[in-house]
Amino acid sequence: MKKHNFYAGPSRLSDYTLKATAEAVIDFAGTGLSVMGISHRTAEFEDVMLSATEIVKELLDVPQGYSVLFLQGGASLQFCMAPFNLLENNATYINTGVWATGAIKEAKYFGDVIELASSADRNFCYIPKGWEKNVSKDTSYVHITSNNTIYGTQYKQDPDVPVYMVADMSSDLFSRPVDVAKYGLIYAGAQKNIGPSGATLVIVKDEILGKVSRPIPKILNYKTHIDGKSMYNTPPTVAVFACLKTLERYRQLGGVQAMKQRADSKAAMLYDEIDRNKMFQGTADFDDRSNMNICFVMTPDYKDLESKFNEFVGARNILGIKGHRSVGGFRASVYNAQREESVKALITAMKDFEKRHL
Amino acid sequence: MKKHNFYAGPSRLSDYTLKATAEAVIDFAGTGLSVMGISHRTAEFEDVMLSATEIVKELLDVPQGYSVLFLQGGASLQFCMAPFNLLENNATYINTGVWATGAIKEAKYFGDVIELASSADRNFCYIPKGWEKNVSKDTSYVHITSNNTIYGTQYKQDPDVPVYMVADMSSDLFSRPVDVAKYGLIYAGAQKNIGPSGATLVIVKDEILGKVSRPIPKILNYKTHIDGKSMYNTPPTVAVFACLKTLERYRQLGGVQAMKQRADSKAAMLYDEIDRNKMFQGTADFDDRSNMNICFVMTPDYKDLESKFNEFVGARNILGIKGHRSVGGFRASVYNAQREESVKALITAMKDFEKRHL
Repeated sequence: MKKHNFYAGPSRLSDYTLKATAEAVIDFAGTGLSVMGISHRTAEFEDVMLSATEIVKELLDVPQGYSVLFLQGGASLQFCMAPFNLLENNATYINTGVWATGAIKEAKYFGDVIELASSADRNFCYIPKGWEKNVSKDTSYVHITSNNTIYGTQYKQDPDVPVYMVADMSSDLFSRPVDVAKYGLIYAGAQKNIGPSGATLVIVKDEILGKVSRPIPKILNYKTHIDGKSMYNTPPTVAVFACLKTLERYRQLGGVQAMKQRADSKAAMLYDEIDRNKMFQGTADFDDRSNMNICFVMTPDYKDLESKFNEFVGARNILGIKGHRSVGGFRASVYNAQREESVKALITAMKDFEKRHL
Repeated sequence: MKKHNFYAGPSRLSDYTLKATAEAVIDFAGTGLSVMGISHRTAEFEDVMLSATEIVKELLDVPQGYSVLFLQGGASLQFCMAPFNLLENNATYINTGVWATGAIKEAKYFGDVIELASSADRNFCYIPKGWEKNVSKDTSYVHITSNNTIYGTQYKQDPDVPVYMVADMSSDLFSRPVDVAKYGLIYAGAQKNIGPSGATLVIVKDEILGKVSRPIPKILNYKTHIDGKSMYNTPPTVAVFACLKTLERYRQLGGVQAMKQRADSKAAMLYDEIDRNKMFQGTADFDDRSNMNICFVMTPDYKDLESKFNEFVGARNILGIKGHRSVGGFRASVYNAQREESVKALITAMKDFEKRHL
């Protein structure tokens, strides 16, 4: 029985990626060896790494002067590496939830953090506005979290600030065009829109590096990984392979512009049902609603039916829609690989549940 | 045609591991979801992590008071995390090659390094002896590299020192019993004897933590990962799954004592041929020869035939025996998953080459 996978991450990968990876685990690129059992220094694997890097540049239209890296450690290690490499006296952070807060905490080991704006006052259900004009020219960078998985909020455009931005784009990179030139550093754990957990994509502007006065351990220095072409130490081979396959698929489907249309369309279908159905309501402010993580709860009159709805959809093989404990209710993650068929199955379940209980 | 995989890492994994992983990439634990596409917070994946942790404790007879972690970043990140967490004023390092040197360089960011012994004088072809009695009781720890992949040397017993040891066991963990109680920290990149690249095994004695005066960023603090049961941030799910399968296989085969017998036997066969065959000679001192990485060169009279021998074995599907550039010649890696059949194929090739050229 086919499952409808709405997990927030690790999350659904396309059949194209899964089939190619399962095959490569047994026989990679016709070598007779597994992608998990072949040296990363072989021509075959070096080609995987190079191709993955090149396709990122192509899909996101990355300008000259930027390096693309596949590292390990997830966004959480980037919370630390970013200020280690970039924060001189202070950096400016916009707090939009648990992950932004995590990034802020790590940055405080390295200098002062200016928390210029926060949506903590309403449980992070919106993206703060109007703070751009207050950014100091003397701050090292402005850090944003472009999409907030837990609260279902998303920046709808790349902010304009007088310094470069650093962005955690773990949960919406490749779902829309990005004006990379505004960013000094973009990072993303792979496990939402890029591939399996265990790979971390980093896009860094070369000229911003080497400017802080603190010494940086070699493994935590972006320059090390640029010089080593993401192979300073052994890369996570099977994870990078699966990332390449996912990115190839995006190219086949028309790139990030096409991904955006698909994301807009899937999200609109589901938000329309949330807004129509009297038993449900969205939790994020309308203008800041995420196209990737769609958060909703039952309306006050039906609050006691939440666990029943969870069981109801479970019986229809709809998995992973329980909301994060800090928001409650439900969260449907509709990353690039999410099928329209699954979104429709969830909508049908909401309608059927309404018929039964309203 | 079956390949004989002698790569130094990533290296051969058993058919048991590969088959189970390829299946789980499509359908993991009967969930209908991929091991790469399911939340790490599901009961099914939590069971993988817990089982992998437990089996490590069982196989290595890990004493009470130690934590077992699966992290990311490879041994290279441990070169940094170990001193970050443990080095107060100084630490003592034994230099046995490129990887030990890498660990020393990272440690110097955090304090003084006492390089108490080194085999650099003879291109790291031996393990320094007799240094144990010179270890100060006031040093934070003694760091060793238990097996040196590039030079084919290996400690034959766990040293006795008056402080705890920190060991990079990337290339021989699970190939022999280890007296874990002598170590405060053992770490190993998975890609030799444990699984695919992208997972890093850490075994740490809880009571040695929290003693340094420097602040430690959260992601680099071992305590964070102990508290999070290796799930503080998203673990590399497919890599950990493949590690579990590899460790299960070791248990089926009789544990590390059985692994040692197999390693001794395979290594002895190949060293015997190296010692017998007039065209070849080993590069490591006899007493320090590694059972995992068997390094040899052509004897001076036949030096010019090295590239010919490489071609000769290549035609027989023997892959990955080119030696590291700093030693030259050949390196046959015979980790746990290496088949006796492949070792025999290499020996036969050496004999046939001798017949043709001697």
